[in-house]
Amino acid sequence: MSGLGKDLLQEPVDVGEYLFRRLYEVGVRSVHGLPGDYNLVALDYIQSTGLKWVGSVNELNAGYAADGYARVKGISALITTFGVGELSAINAIAGAFSEHVPIIHIVGCPSTVSQQNGMLLHHTLGNGDFNVFANMNSEVSCDIAKLNTPAEIASQIDHAIRKCWVRSRPVYIMLPTDVVRKKIEGARLKKPIDLEENPNDQAREDYVVDVVLKYLYAAKRPVMLVDACAIRHRVLDETHALLEKANMPVFVTPMGKGAIDETHSNYGGVYAGEGSNPEAKVRVESSDLILSIGALKSDFNTAGFSYRTSQLNTIDFHSTHTIVRYSEYPGVKMKGVLRKVTEKLDPGKLAMVPSPVVENIVPSRQEDPSPTITQAWLWPRFGQFLRYNDIVVTDTGTANFGIWETRFPPGVTALSQVLWGSIGWSVGACQGAALAAKDVGQDRRTILFVGDGSLQLTVQEISTMIRHKLHVTIFVLCNEGFTIERFIHGMDAEYNDIVEWKYKDIPAVFGAPEGETRAYRVHIKDELERLLTDKEFGDFKGLQLVELHVGKHDAPRSLVLTAQQSARTNIKND
Amino acid sequence: MSGLGKDLLQEPVDVGEYLFRRLYEVGVRSVHGLPGDYNLVALDYIQSTGLKWVGSVNELNAGYAADGYARVKGISALITTFGVGELSAINAIAGAFSEHVPIIHIVGCPSTVSQQNGMLLHHTLGNGDFNVFANMNSEVSCDIAKLNTPAEIASQIDHAIRKCWVRSRPVYIMLPTDVVRKKIEGARLKKPIDLEENPNDQAREDYVVDVVLKYLYAAKRPVMLVDACAIRHRVLDETHALLEKANMPVFVTPMGKGAIDETHSNYGGVYAGEGSNPEAKVRVESSDLILSIGALKSDFNTAGFSYRTSQLNTIDFHSTHTIVRYSEYPGVKMKGVLRKVTEKLDPGKLAMVPSPVVENIVPSRQEDPSPTITQAWLWPRFGQFLRYNDIVVTDTGTANFGIWETRFPPGVTALSQVLWGSIGWSVGACQGAALAAKDVGQDRRTILFVGDGSLQLTVQEISTMIRHKLHVTIFVLCNEGFTIERFIHGMDAEYNDIVEWKYKDIPAVFGAPEGETRAYRVHIKDELERLLTDKEFGDFKGLQLVELHVGKHDAPRSLVLTAQQSARTNIKND
Ligand SMILES: Cc1ncc(C[n+]2csc(CCOP(=O)(O)OP(=O)(O)O)c2C)c(N)n1
Ligand SMILES: Cc1ncc(C[n+]2csc(CCOP(=O)(O)OP(=O)(O)O)c2C)c(N)n1
Ligand SMILES: [Mg+2]
Ligand SMILES: [Mg+2]
Repeated sequence: MSGLGKDLLQEPVDVGEYLFRRLYEVGVRSVHGLPGDYNLVALDYIQSTGLKWVGSVNELNAGYAADGYARVKGISALITTFGVGELSAINAIAGAFSEHVPIIHIVGCPSTVSQQNGMLLHHTLGNGDFNVFANMNSEVSCDIAKLNTPAEIASQIDHAIRKCWVRSRPVYIMLPTDVVRKKIEGARLKKPIDLEENPNDQAREDYVVDVVLKYLYAAKRPVMLVDACAIRHRVLDETHALLEKANMPVFVTPMGKGAIDETHSNYGGVYAGEGSNPEAKVRVESSDLILSIGALKSDFNTAGFSYRTSQLNTIDFHSTHTIVRYSEYPGVKMKGVLRKVTEKLDPGKLAMVPSPVVENIVPSRQEDPSPTITQAWLWPRFGQFLRYNDIVVTDTGTANFGIWETRFPPGVTALSQVLWGSIGWSVGACQGAALAAKDVGQDRRTILFVGDGSLQLTVQEISTMIRHKLHVTIFVLCNEGFTIERFIHGMDAEYNDIVEWKYKDIPAVFGAPEGETRAYRVHIKDELERLLTDKEFGDFKGLQLVELHVGKHDAPRSLVLTAQQSARTNIKND
Repeated sequence: MSGLGKDLLQEPVDVGEYLFRRLYEVGVRSVHGLPGDYNLVALDYIQSTGLKWVGSVNELNAGYAADGYARVKGISALITTFGVGELSAINAIAGAFSEHVPIIHIVGCPSTVSQQNGMLLHHTLGNGDFNVFANMNSEVSCDIAKLNTPAEIASQIDHAIRKCWVRSRPVYIMLPTDVVRKKIEGARLKKPIDLEENPNDQAREDYVVDVVLKYLYAAKRPVMLVDACAIRHRVLDETHALLEKANMPVFVTPMGKGAIDETHSNYGGVYAGEGSNPEAKVRVESSDLILSIGALKSDFNTAGFSYRTSQLNTIDFHSTHTIVRYSEYPGVKMKGVLRKVTEKLDPGKLAMVPSPVVENIVPSRQEDPSPTITQAWLWPRFGQFLRYNDIVVTDTGTANFGIWETRFPPGVTALSQVLWGSIGWSVGACQGAALAAKDVGQDRRTILFVGDGSLQLTVQEISTMIRHKLHVTIFVLCNEGFTIERFIHGMDAEYNDIVEWKYKDIPAVFGAPEGETRAYRVHIKDELERLLTDKEFGDFKGLQLVELHVGKHDAPRSLVLTAQQSARTNIKND
């Protein structure tokens, strides 16, 4: 097992060890994935480098879980096997690419010798081409590292991990079986990988900051609007610092939800065009200067492109550039700009505008008299159930829209996949998020809201939650199928129906030991009320599943709007 | 909703209708897939064209099921939604590409208008690129049809379906939402799509046939060896015709299993190099002329490349070419050659060699005294349980190797995925196969042998079996994890362990109505013996699940051999 002239190495270390020590260094503690004969030898290094093997139930779920893990822990790792494993996970990787989530995807592949010889191995297309899956992955990864030549491997690994972090997107590392035990230079490990992004060109940055300040001082009704990329590109500290100093109203988009403390006196609620609550809509749309931080204006994040704001009143802060009205500043990244704007800002020169007050109002019996659970009642009600530091995960479906109406307590981390929108994602992501919290020793509750339809795609992830004794409460919204789709097309079509499962019995089947798990079935408001106010339920440390029945034809207001808009876009002829 | 000058069309028909009527024409009856807002409008055409919507539980399973359906019914269709759906299924499509299975994959995608405008829609990478998923699919599809221009659509559809059938590989059809209702020429539908492969150049074919006959007449111990592509490229009739006329010993490879009636007096068993039963090994390897039909000599199909045969003694018949010893004849396809060889053959000039006798011998109590179930006992025992016309599905793991030891009754169709080897495939494939049998009104039993590890990846497919009241018996081989992997590397490693599920309780959770499903738990031979001889069990028309416990460290002989070989290949340095 020799690498490049082993004698020339100061501190020879196996490729497997080098790679996994780097993972540990950047914050990974648990590694998601499945074994396969092309990665088995690599897996032997997991324990010895201080990492934990998750032992996922399938690769798509593993990818979703790695996504959730990265959103909470900063970065994550996924190991799959060549062909069959990596392609099973590729939808999760595409989602992470789309939504700016950093996953280090390591694929155990056939030996360099087998590749050179074009052997007809299992998990190939039978055509001797060993690059085809890497090619496919290159469409959804920001770096592809094929670890074939020992002399290059250490820098390939360091480069890939840095890029993963800085770009906040997946990278793909191809690790041949015969390379895992090759020796490379371990002395490099003494110097941590540099994860800082390159600073902006100072002259350009200063220029942009001055322009921003000029417009800020001139504005009469400035507001901040915080979106997904503020979270994913790690400028929440900068955003909060600016908020404290500028003391202006702040709003979040659906994908930005959780970025701002929602009990903060400046917090004005969710802005999503027509889907906003009325006061937020008025405030944002009548503003003469919107500081838009990390915007990602996709259809579902804007209630069907229903913003009524003008670019003339907007400054866009992005991870790769800044746009002031129509002037673009490529390469001027938001982190530096936000810091310097905050630093230079003279709050005395700013117009003071009061923020709207956001309350979490649960409709009264008079307003919503139905004994059964309505979407209008449900989401504010959850707002009362949530606690400081909860992690809240929602899936595409009524949940992703309903959650707009839930006001979070401080410290809540919210996970959703509004742009990519792959159903079933949330179940994996929930597992990964809960595990990430556990890995840093935080006793946080992870709470999942998932539709019955979405749960069916990835249900076995509950088994992984059980395996790792995670602290998770799952609310399954049972409405006999794909309600969100019904509102787009086919209200009563057969293709929007699903098989009715016994959701409550799922944890037991997937190996939950008696007593460590609880399951409930809830049909009416009073039952849910009792459950949500039960202290034992709220404090339970294990896995809980609540089968929660809601109306088949009931949806949050914002979903109804967005769905109509989507249906229109789909058939529009010009 | 107009297409190209509607007035110019003789019999205007909607694109959706045209496409689905073509599916029906080539033999599709049930369509697998999941809805998504980009395919909903298309789904409206399913019922009216006489097709049935399966309503799958996730796209990977749907793809696997389409694979199983095509293997039994000849061809299949899968409908997914842009990005999230199609990428979830792409591993199944890659498997079908690798294993030569014809699936028509239809992807509902954003409207042509949205694409032209580069809109920031859900299920995109957020970069305005609507071709990236088609590009990925082009690596694993033999045709890509983007249905954008009405004037071209009918011929694009016809071309894709023909190619799918003739090449026996997946094709990819991208159907924008605004195109579904466009009008195209329906008069074309009167002429069925031509599915015949182009005939060989006659002079070349005659030449090859003469060469083949020359070697056949000269041979002293000729044999036939039938492999996967004989099944997938539909030359079983030609193979049997040749067998009847030539009356020589015939063997199958693991991937060819089921191609030949195993009770036929010429049948000599499975040949897979070292993995063969001893007599088959001797016969094939001492033969001076092997007629190899549809070979696919992958590692797992050859027990780790352990053939001891010479190309000098081999004639290879392939779907695209023929090879006689070292002479290659590109474009001379096997179907024509086999037909003509049979036609011209003078059996009187052939050497007569008796075939070895293949019996299905279950080890006796003396030979295998353990009361618990051993792999050595299990597989021949299943041979006694199987009946005429059963469909037998096995997954990668001990099952795929154990089945070599099971002698099939006549009419058995065997499904396995030995080359691609994606675990969990069998559960989807089993559903698709059983549905295909039901769709042609055949009352066949579909019997699945799947490992506990493999089942966990795709378990929810059992719900689809319940939805369609399929006639399926599932044997779950419970051995506490990934036994096949243990034999390759990490015999007692944690990464080869899984969570212990309550397998027996699975059907009930996934919606099986009381009485329509049965489930059993079996630990010892006597229990299994009782079950397999119970007439009610054998005749039950619904879903049955048997949780069958076998030893954690027990594997079929052929697997032990192949695993050792794989481990060696993985670490070999030159
Ligand atoms: C992987 C994948 N397949 C299909 C879709 C299309 N799709 C979007 S939402 C949805 C239905 C979700 O239903 P459910 O989870 O029950 O939510 P509900 O709206 O009923 O609360 C479907 C099928 C998707 N987004 N992702
Ligand atoms: C999608 C996918 N992931 C991972 C693998 C690697 N793999 C091959 S066989 C196997 C274990 C199968 O275990 P099980 O089904 O329990 O069969 P056993 O050998 O125990 O009977 C694994 C993980 C694979 N082939 N496909
Ligand atoms: Mg639902
Ligand atoms: Mg097993």
